[in-house]
Amino acid sequence: MAKELTPRSENYSQWYQDLVIKADLAESSAVRGCMVIKPYGYAIWEKMQGELDRMFKETGHVNAYFPLFIPKSFFSKEADHVEGFAKECAVVTHYRLKNDEENGGVVVDPAAKLEEELIVRPTSETIIWNTYRNWIQSHRDLPLLINQWANVVRWEMRTRLFLRTAEFLWQEGHTAHATKQEAIDETVKMINVYANFAENFMAVPVIKGVKTANERFAGALDTYTIEALMQDGKALQSGTSHFLGQNFAKAFDVKFTNKEGREEYVWATSWGVSTRLMGALIMAHSDDNGLVLPPKLAPIQVVIVPIYKKTEQLGAISEKVNEIVAALKQKGISVKFDDSDNKKPGWKFAEYEMKGVPVRLAMGPRDLENGTVEIARRDTLEKNIVPIEGVSEYIEKLLDEIQQNIFQKAFDFRSHMITKVDTWEEFKDVLKNKGGFISAHWDGTTETEEKIKSETKATIRCIPLENEQEEGKCVYSGKPSTQRVLFALAY
Amino acid sequence: MAKELTPRSENYSQWYQDLVIKADLAESSAVRGCMVIKPYGYAIWEKMQGELDRMFKETGHVNAYFPLFIPKSFFSKEADHVEGFAKECAVVTHYRLKNDEENGGVVVDPAAKLEEELIVRPTSETIIWNTYRNWIQSHRDLPLLINQWANVVRWEMRTRLFLRTAEFLWQEGHTAHATKQEAIDETVKMINVYANFAENFMAVPVIKGVKTANERFAGALDTYTIEALMQDGKALQSGTSHFLGQNFAKAFDVKFTNKEGREEYVWATSWGVSTRLMGALIMAHSDDNGLVLPPKLAPIQVVIVPIYKKTEQLGAISEKVNEIVAALKQKGISVKFDDSDNKKPGWKFAEYEMKGVPVRLAMGPRDLENGTVEIARRDTLEKNIVPIEGVSEYIEKLLDEIQQNIFQKAFDFRSHMITKVDTWEEFKDVLKNKGGFISAHWDGTTETEEKIKSETKATIRCIPLENEQEEGKCVYSGKPSTQRVLFALAY
Repeated sequence: MAKELTPRSENYSQWYQDLVIKADLAESSAVRGCMVIKPYGYAIWEKMQGELDRMFKETGHVNAYFPLFIPKSFFSKEADHVEGFAKECAVVTHYRLKNDEENGGVVVDPAAKLEEELIVRPTSETIIWNTYRNWIQSHRDLPLLINQWANVVRWEMRTRLFLRTAEFLWQEGHTAHATKQEAIDETVKMINVYANFAENFMAVPVIKGVKTANERFAGALDTYTIEALMQDGKALQSGTSHFLGQNFAKAFDVKFTNKEGREEYVWATSWGVSTRLMGALIMAHSDDNGLVLPPKLAPIQVVIVPIYKKTEQLGAISEKVNEIVAALKQKGISVKFDDSDNKKPGWKFAEYEMKGVPVRLAMGPRDLENGTVEIARRDTLEKNIVPIEGVSEYIEKLLDEIQQNIFQKAFDFRSHMITKVDTWEEFKDVLKNKGGFISAHWDGTTETEEKIKSETKATIRCIPLENEQEEGKCVYSGKPSTQRVLFALAY
Repeated sequence: MAKELTPRSENYSQWYQDLVIKADLAESSAVRGCMVIKPYGYAIWEKMQGELDRMFKETGHVNAYFPLFIPKSFFSKEADHVEGFAKECAVVTHYRLKNDEENGGVVVDPAAKLEEELIVRPTSETIIWNTYRNWIQSHRDLPLLINQWANVVRWEMRTRLFLRTAEFLWQEGHTAHATKQEAIDETVKMINVYANFAENFMAVPVIKGVKTANERFAGALDTYTIEALMQDGKALQSGTSHFLGQNFAKAFDVKFTNKEGREEYVWATSWGVSTRLMGALIMAHSDDNGLVLPPKLAPIQVVIVPIYKKTEQLGAISEKVNEIVAALKQKGISVKFDDSDNKKPGWKFAEYEMKGVPVRLAMGPRDLENGTVEIARRDTLEKNIVPIEGVSEYIEKLLDEIQQNIFQKAFDFRSHMITKVDTWEEFKDVLKNKGGFISAHWDGTTETEEKIKSETKATIRCIPLENEQEEGKCVYSGKPSTQRVLFALAY
């Protein structure tokens, strides 16, 4: 095999790191904590962007672009917000370099100091709500349903490719509404869009829920989340949608005249997903041979490898393959015919396995004689010999089947990994020996939540939206509780 | 009319400023020199991006993403490059804020100073070539044909929406090649892609040419440009493609083993267009009534306005309009039916004229009776009554015609505005009283070029690629010359 990964069973974290590098998805850059997203990784991100953007537009949103920089003073205006982001932000203080041979070449020009420092956006609520003040006067200006695709910077100390990086790419929706209910409806609508995307495109089952007060976005009244489960039993927060109440409207004085002619503060939401989804996608499905991609997000859905000993044989194979390529393209299936002659078929097989191409066709002289082709699926590694006649229909169906199968596998795993627990001993035991989501009663206090976290590192991932109400006792404090919540170790 | 612009004849610059604001394209932000691109402006930019991205991929390029920040030391490595960009860059020096009530709330934490300052990328050659060092070992790794869509920052002192902003959006291609000729071919290929995009999508005729040494990109051996002409007779550089030789490969030690087994430095190109194209698009075609958009880049190609006195009439009109909408969508034409009842038709007409929607349909009760519809074109402001029967085919043809007409109008204007000049008096006279491109002989020296610039502000826009060779005398120095070059005042 061309490249080898550390097996998951040996070291899951190293397996992930190896996979990101060897599947050519991303790498660390010369800038601390910042990654380079390589072409193959970026192609997957583009597929994600395309689908999400379509979903946002179908739900009435439009794109816009706001500045990269935020004046420092804007941060102070919403107290919780500054508390949440000030500790990890990149600050621009100067606007010029100059030559200074004595001090080693190029230095920052002290004469070019900014009057007010600029923060590289970690999220854009403040600059956007400062802008909305001029855009919103009347109820007729509402709702404002805007999304932005952008890069943001959070100065994280411990970074991991895609999962946690100082700079990352994301989209951030920022909407403004006339009523509280409308804003809450929007918040829920967008967490549903994210869940739909995660399950039907990424093939990653997610649990929709609400965060506890402690885990809310800085400045939100409520944070909705989708939580996914990785193969090592850890949870990964994959998207959040925030009901911001009137906090930012008050901080930036954004009022509108309602239908009755009275002035009111505007109601807000924000919601985002980021290149972190790439981490979720990679970790949820892949195996020790490499990436496993759901067909709907695979940049190459089908690869065709010719098998031949003598170069003369390639001509006849190519002719047949080109027919298949044309038929697949006709159906909107992306296909690559790898007829490069400086790599052996075995090397190519391993390479496309590493890159998670869902379907691989191999065709040699004997196939040509028999009118057949060998088809291998990446998800199950099964191989089949099938007739060339009707192969494009076969593949079209197979891609759907693979998409389904990948989801089902992840779903079954996740189902197995939700454990109901009623005692503290059991809680610790499951957390240590099994992992996954622990469904347990909690007394509803931040105090208990924090004690559990400090003793076990487990956090409350969410209070599920569709949650059974039942009498119970808090697994930690023994105090009364009315519903279970989901705990887990998390990325 | 709902909104009015300063007429072009009165103050072209103010007209542009008014138009950008009133057509809802962009506005200045709270951050000096940075703009907010509003949804309607961004929708046009998305159309541009979509077409360009398709063209880049058709010519074999893939997208990737590199860090926003560039370590300061990287800048020093290519001498001309640092000289060109150091004077106008945003510098990150700290990575944390902290609360300091005594000093007015939130301040930069002096304890969180970076060891090495980071520059917000003004362009990415340095960080990318530092990355390419690890990606390129052998001739088999070449060519590397990569593009990036990103935001960049250049600390401009005088800014104008879209045309010159501190932050702007762009794409930057960075390619690596085994031979000098291949790199030059790529440079030329991409300036042709840009010219094709400008002429066939933006409907803006451009002159392809080479920059003089003085006007080259910082670090390039040759800069190719496309130069467009605005209605006020000023030139606008709309896209550039640079042959970088081995400058960046040498600065970042990027070598490859060639087919003969010898080590060589890699050859480079870079090329980019930015949101500046929005400025070109706006200024090239629009008039005193507002924006004029070429159909191929218009977010809304057709708008339909119902005309009625009594609300009861709207039902029957809507029914017919919905048929037209369906037929247009079937043809891939983007159409908006504006049946909002809180605005009068006259207001809507003015609004869509301001926004440059290429075709406007109006339908009232009498049209319904007669089986007709009124069609107005934005480019000529002509109106016609046409039968509803076959109207979608009519509109499809009309959109093509408008696209052609807008280009032809700009082309005729540009042709009229290229003036051959053989004396210095004439040069100054044409520059002052007519403007446009001045085609004149130049002695080829930077000295003369700079004298002309300091006396007249005119610069050499380019030495056209398809240039007649002819004996002549420099319009300024009288020294011998072999070809004319194009001078102009420029944005």
